[in-house]
Amino acid sequence: MDWSMEVNGGSSKEMPGFLTRVWQGIISIFAMVKSCFRGFFERVWKLGKDDPRRVVHSLKVGLALTLVSLFYFMRPLYDGVGGMAIWAVMTVVVVFEYSVGATLSKGLNRGFATLLAGSLAVGVHELASLSGDKSEPIILGISVFLQATVFTFLRFFPTIKTRYDYGAMIFILTFSLVSVSGYRVDKLLEMAHQRLSTILIGSALCVLVSMLVCPVWAGEDLHNLIAKNLDKLAASVEGVVAENFKEGEGEEEGEINEENPSVLGYKCVLNSKPTEEALANFARWEPAHGPFGFRHPWKQYLKIGMAARYCAYSLEALNACTNSDSQAAQELTQHLKAVCTKVGHVSSDLLLDLSSTVKKMTTSSHTDLLVAQLNIAVQELQLALKILSNPLPVHVSIPDIVLIATVASLTVEISARVEDVAEAVEELSRIAHFKTETAEENKQKAATIKALADSDGPHVAIHVDSL
Amino acid sequence: MDWSMEVNGGSSKEMPGFLTRVWQGIISIFAMVKSCFRGFFERVWKLGKDDPRRVVHSLKVGLALTLVSLFYFMRPLYDGVGGMAIWAVMTVVVVFEYSVGATLSKGLNRGFATLLAGSLAVGVHELASLSGDKSEPIILGISVFLQATVFTFLRFFPTIKTRYDYGAMIFILTFSLVSVSGYRVDKLLEMAHQRLSTILIGSALCVLVSMLVCPVWAGEDLHNLIAKNLDKLAASVEGVVAENFKEGEGEEEGEINEENPSVLGYKCVLNSKPTEEALANFARWEPAHGPFGFRHPWKQYLKIGMAARYCAYSLEALNACTNSDSQAAQELTQHLKAVCTKVGHVSSDLLLDLSSTVKKMTTSSHTDLLVAQLNIAVQELQLALKILSNPLPVHVSIPDIVLIATVASLTVEISARVEDVAEAVEELSRIAHFKTETAEENKQKAATIKALADSDGPHVAIHVDSL
Repeated sequence: MDWSMEVNGGSSKEMPGFLTRVWQGIISIFAMVKSCFRGFFERVWKLGKDDPRRVVHSLKVGLALTLVSLFYFMRPLYDGVGGMAIWAVMTVVVVFEYSVGATLSKGLNRGFATLLAGSLAVGVHELASLSGDKSEPIILGISVFLQATVFTFLRFFPTIKTRYDYGAMIFILTFSLVSVSGYRVDKLLEMAHQRLSTILIGSALCVLVSMLVCPVWAGEDLHNLIAKNLDKLAASVEGVVAENFKEGEGEEEGEINEENPSVLGYKCVLNSKPTEEALANFARWEPAHGPFGFRHPWKQYLKIGMAARYCAYSLEALNACTNSDSQAAQELTQHLKAVCTKVGHVSSDLLLDLSSTVKKMTTSSHTDLLVAQLNIAVQELQLALKILSNPLPVHVSIPDIVLIATVASLTVEISARVEDVAEAVEELSRIAHFKTETAEENKQKAATIKALADSDGPHVAIHVDSL
Repeated sequence: MDWSMEVNGGSSKEMPGFLTRVWQGIISIFAMVKSCFRGFFERVWKLGKDDPRRVVHSLKVGLALTLVSLFYFMRPLYDGVGGMAIWAVMTVVVVFEYSVGATLSKGLNRGFATLLAGSLAVGVHELASLSGDKSEPIILGISVFLQATVFTFLRFFPTIKTRYDYGAMIFILTFSLVSVSGYRVDKLLEMAHQRLSTILIGSALCVLVSMLVCPVWAGEDLHNLIAKNLDKLAASVEGVVAENFKEGEGEEEGEINEENPSVLGYKCVLNSKPTEEALANFARWEPAHGPFGFRHPWKQYLKIGMAARYCAYSLEALNACTNSDSQAAQELTQHLKAVCTKVGHVSSDLLLDLSSTVKKMTTSSHTDLLVAQLNIAVQELQLALKILSNPLPVHVSIPDIVLIATVASLTVEISARVEDVAEAVEELSRIAHFKTETAEENKQKAATIKALADSDGPHVAIHVDSL
């Protein structure tokens, strides 16, 4: 009794404290849930804001699925496909992809693979049923095993893997389903025919919604990606070269770069290969759209991407060079600063010009001029190195100049790779029949370039004179 | 008559010639078909020979499909799943992937998504059917639209995209199928239950065949890929550095490299990121296997891969340096050849040591020694540059030494990045509790390293003395 009283008394005393704690616990759980939800919705908002086409794509999928559901909700439609509406719904879910090219690729693969495999399976089933009830499942089993093995192996072929992988899978699926279920289903031909027609309906619906409602073209995305990567490279080339000539602020390279995110833009280009290849692969399935013709040379974009990537590799090496603190090195650095910065600047201008060539699909009349300017700037840089050493300042030792020599040499290397990009873009403009600039644009641009040249003029004049 | 005679006569005269031509045509078509077939079978043979696991995988898919066909061929099994065997066949075709991890990932995603979406859809269907015949299709249509929109948008989240993308698709699929077909099917719960059980049977069969018959583990592949990439880098580091000191044979860099394909091994490392990430993603789904525990740190392999890739970027820049023909440069080159080659050689040894650490999952006791040797070699290189310039040969100008300075500087950069790889491997060995070497292995390795050191000894001795 005493003990029980004590416990009771104790608990009654603690009750308000306990309740408060429970209450606080509930409040904190609510706060946590609320912050979780807020974090989640902030991420959703950011995802949608970064690319509003994602929201549109989600709505398009919802629309296509609701439309295909009508095959269930409307009796004439449901009966029209013989109750096989399930395949239309399934097709919409698995075929609808983000870009038109990807949707077309999946839809066509699915349609043709179903048609081929269905016909073959019906044939095999007819043959097997002729052989008698006992041997029928054996023949069917062997044929399923053989076709699955052969087509799975074919999926390892690089050409099939990139373009017809989904088709090969659907072939295996349809062949197995039709030939095996033929053993139990009576009206096999009818079933196969209905399945094919519902799949064609589903695929066609996907392709139509994907192409007609705010279409996302993989080709256009590839086009923009390449132009954007050239812009990023342009910012990085100028930035990284300039970073190397910043007067010794004693900062770490990393810190400086963190302040200038545009300098690190080239890092995106390092890893852009898989995205570019996927987009080019889908773009090949797309019909003519906007400024892009039916046989637009998407492969050439991959070549530009590759050239840009090699440029980014050299930038990565240059970005790794750290500022030297030696006094002698600083003197030399100042001497070479102007010429190196000029090479970086002209490379950057050339990249911007190439990016605008790609963006506007219009051959720029200034590309050749900029390439020539770049060559002159590189010659100036080499000349500046020669002048520098004649006579070599006595207090300069080789370790002092190793860094600056590396920067100079990598800058030259980068300019050579920028010229490779220029060549690839020039080839694209030739193959894809880019327009040439109008006189008006021409004049406007010439004025800009003249202004640029004037601001950099003195270096050119001095070094060209001393040639 | 005349004309007809003429024609007849003409044709009868030409007959032998015509027949011969047709015969030749047939023969040449046969030859073409034969050469096509031969080409095709040669490619098939090569594909299988390069990785015989591909053949095994194809046979495994055939086996799994034949096993699942038994659900059609055997009456008790067919009735057991209520005639829904179609879903089991479909599941096997779409879930069976090359590696165990990929199969498990798809199987689990499919199983759980079907369970969740099925329960939710049955609930929604019950609610909708309570609301009356008129409003039922409207409620169902809205719910299908909403869930498709929301889940399609969720697929854009990076975490969901990498791990649960397939699950999200199956969720949309199952929800739509079950809720919409509920409008026409009477025994909805039974149908959903049978669908779930056949999908679970199909998934389980895939996982079992994939794991029990010659399993291909994504984790093991990742492990081997990283070790192989380190080996390739080791060959390239030594090769590329050596190429730069080849005595002017007047050959193009490209030509020299084509003779030594091992020098270009680093090119594979440049683009290995997507493969590594896919393998790491699948490896996370795999149970403990072989020497890899359940929570093996697969992410750390990605860090090693990243460090190796940065090393390859610098190698790419170094490989772009071309041999100079200037006589003065050659003198300098000879002077620095020994020290640079040594840095390349020790870097290469260190990479091989790291690769063997990863391969054997055994911490090498020589890693620290090799890192120390590498640091000494780098210091020697810097010292050699200092000695060289004191006094600087009068006939040497800066352009002469730009190239060699760049080579030296990039060699130092590469060695620094090799040390980053060493750090990443060291972290892996710590997190994954690698074994330490036995005394026997230790002794054997020490002898090898001593032999190596002896052969390179002179340079070390000279330069360490002159410190």
